[in-house]
Amino acid sequence: MHALHMTASSGEVLLESGIFRDVGTILARHFPRSRAAVITDDHVAPLYLSPLLETLSLAGIPASAHVFPAGESAKSLACLTELYGFLQENRMTRTDPVIALGGGVIGDLTGLAAATWLRGVPLVQVPTTLLAQVDASLGGKTAVDFQGVKNLIGTFYQPSLVFCDPCMLRTLSPAQWRNGLGEVVKYACIGDPDLFTLLEEAAPRGREGLMKRIDTLLLRCIEQKIRVVEQDVRDTGIRMILNFGHTLAHALEACQNFEGLSHGEAVSIGMDRTTRLSEARGLTEKGTWARLHQLLTSLCLETELPPIPSSALLSAMQMDKKHTGRVLHLIILERIGACRILDTSPSFFFDPAD
Amino acid sequence: MHALHMTASSGEVLLESGIFRDVGTILARHFPRSRAAVITDDHVAPLYLSPLLETLSLAGIPASAHVFPAGESAKSLACLTELYGFLQENRMTRTDPVIALGGGVIGDLTGLAAATWLRGVPLVQVPTTLLAQVDASLGGKTAVDFQGVKNLIGTFYQPSLVFCDPCMLRTLSPAQWRNGLGEVVKYACIGDPDLFTLLEEAAPRGREGLMKRIDTLLLRCIEQKIRVVEQDVRDTGIRMILNFGHTLAHALEACQNFEGLSHGEAVSIGMDRTTRLSEARGLTEKGTWARLHQLLTSLCLETELPPIPSSALLSAMQMDKKHTGRVLHLIILERIGACRILDTSPSFFFDPAD
Repeated sequence: MHALHMTASSGEVLLESGIFRDVGTILARHFPRSRAAVITDDHVAPLYLSPLLETLSLAGIPASAHVFPAGESAKSLACLTELYGFLQENRMTRTDPVIALGGGVIGDLTGLAAATWLRGVPLVQVPTTLLAQVDASLGGKTAVDFQGVKNLIGTFYQPSLVFCDPCMLRTLSPAQWRNGLGEVVKYACIGDPDLFTLLEEAAPRGREGLMKRIDTLLLRCIEQKIRVVEQDVRDTGIRMILNFGHTLAHALEACQNFEGLSHGEAVSIGMDRTTRLSEARGLTEKGTWARLHQLLTSLCLETELPPIPSSALLSAMQMDKKHTGRVLHLIILERIGACRILDTSPSFFFDPAD
Repeated sequence: MHALHMTASSGEVLLESGIFRDVGTILARHFPRSRAAVITDDHVAPLYLSPLLETLSLAGIPASAHVFPAGESAKSLACLTELYGFLQENRMTRTDPVIALGGGVIGDLTGLAAATWLRGVPLVQVPTTLLAQVDASLGGKTAVDFQGVKNLIGTFYQPSLVFCDPCMLRTLSPAQWRNGLGEVVKYACIGDPDLFTLLEEAAPRGREGLMKRIDTLLLRCIEQKIRVVEQDVRDTGIRMILNFGHTLAHALEACQNFEGLSHGEAVSIGMDRTTRLSEARGLTEKGTWARLHQLLTSLCLETELPPIPSSALLSAMQMDKKHTGRVLHLIILERIGACRILDTSPSFFFDPAD
């Protein structure tokens, strides 16, 4: 088992195939004489809720579960209020852990509830998707959406424990799998050239080829995420390098009302387009884009911009920019495995450069 | 001017008569090119909203204001949602300060909104009551009530700036004034024998006598609150000494559905009764209770328990205890100016001891 210490939370990420079965015993050690609340959705519940409740019960932890409908709609103040009602009904105290069993949506919603219930109770993440295992469950970002804007309301609140079990990825749909791969490629691009090479080698053998190396792959992503986050817990500086590909991705997602491309696909397009442009402008080592484009293609990730007018993308970027200041801090690659921040404007994406 | 640095927030408490007029200039230095949101209630707005907006405007800070009905009912998820709507309407960004102008209710509600809007925006407290100036505006506790239970939902989120202007206390009603005095006596009891002596000297000359010494009085309370909070930001240890008198006070308030005694009066009764019992049991230096009782009486603070059945008080304490563990950690005085934690049970208050 890999146990990765998170300084920001004094918590740990536990990474091992099959660790899902040990959640109960491990929680019983960390939270003696506690009871647990499990939050999940109706996609994940049929697969993993019963076994989770069973491992808790065997370890002597009484637990109650609350199931939300799957999908982004659960990231709302209405669902948050419903969740508070569930915690109150079960008289959860300051020492009782709240467990998020699911992907990014369940993790974000449950994280915000845990951060604010009794001014903060222990948060345990059991991420069931690739995206959540390498990204959403780590770093302490919690949120709900508000008035159609993503993640307007939230906190930084670190989990006490994250259980990362690669076996759970076997139940992912191809779309969910690709959704996570976008972020995996991102980690390789911004800081891990060896991971990039590993992906290049495994990608031609498809999902099974990647699953053969999944422990290493997850470990390297998680290590990098923790390293970056702990230098900048509140996301005011270096942490923005995790946004490589995301400026364009967020604009694409917003233009499609978050109902078109998945996040991972949008990030893939964002990384591809950003790198093509930065290389054309001489900011990126020659050949970088070709290598990236080849990897994304062999992973069956989208790289082509959907037919959205430039004016709509530009306007979406300007909206997004409002939340971060007057300058667009764009993450670009210097080469595979090394990135930097370029202070520019949204016109970077629209001025003819190639 | 006294400028007290708060390490936990890298923020400051600025204490000076008349500093309210300088809020604009000082904020303009701390938050250049920002806009501000002012949150207040309909008791405070007629007194202080226009002058606050004027000082902001003169300093070149555009500001919008939102006014809630005065009273505890504003500490609700409904008002929090309304407040989010106001922040979104005004497109508040990560660098724009949210200003709480009012007492503890407005401070708690606004603090929670600031803590969670865009995962945290700068919070500025302009406390207008004695209770808020010495207690509620400091220490980072934010909250709303839920399903009839006080402060169930909240965060720890430190203010960037607290403007503490003693002149604002002149508009307080006698009841609001006494409400704050309970906490002032508490600080003297648990850690500041000189403040206790100052209060004994000034009390016989009434409110005007105390107002003559108000700068010193506020300074010593604020210094102590900051000192204790910064040893224990998340309230898991030493910070509980600030709860002297509060175990009984919370039970009294709950039994009256928070519509009877004010918090300060309840704390006064709690300090008086706890000290009488601890002295009777030989845990407190002889004569301490008499001195405390005399001071509370000369400050016109309540010391007599209202006619509430012991069984109701006991049951309220047991409910409260659920949130903190199995043992009742009761704060008792060793003598005036020195306290300690006694691990006991609610029966402390009900077993015959005198």
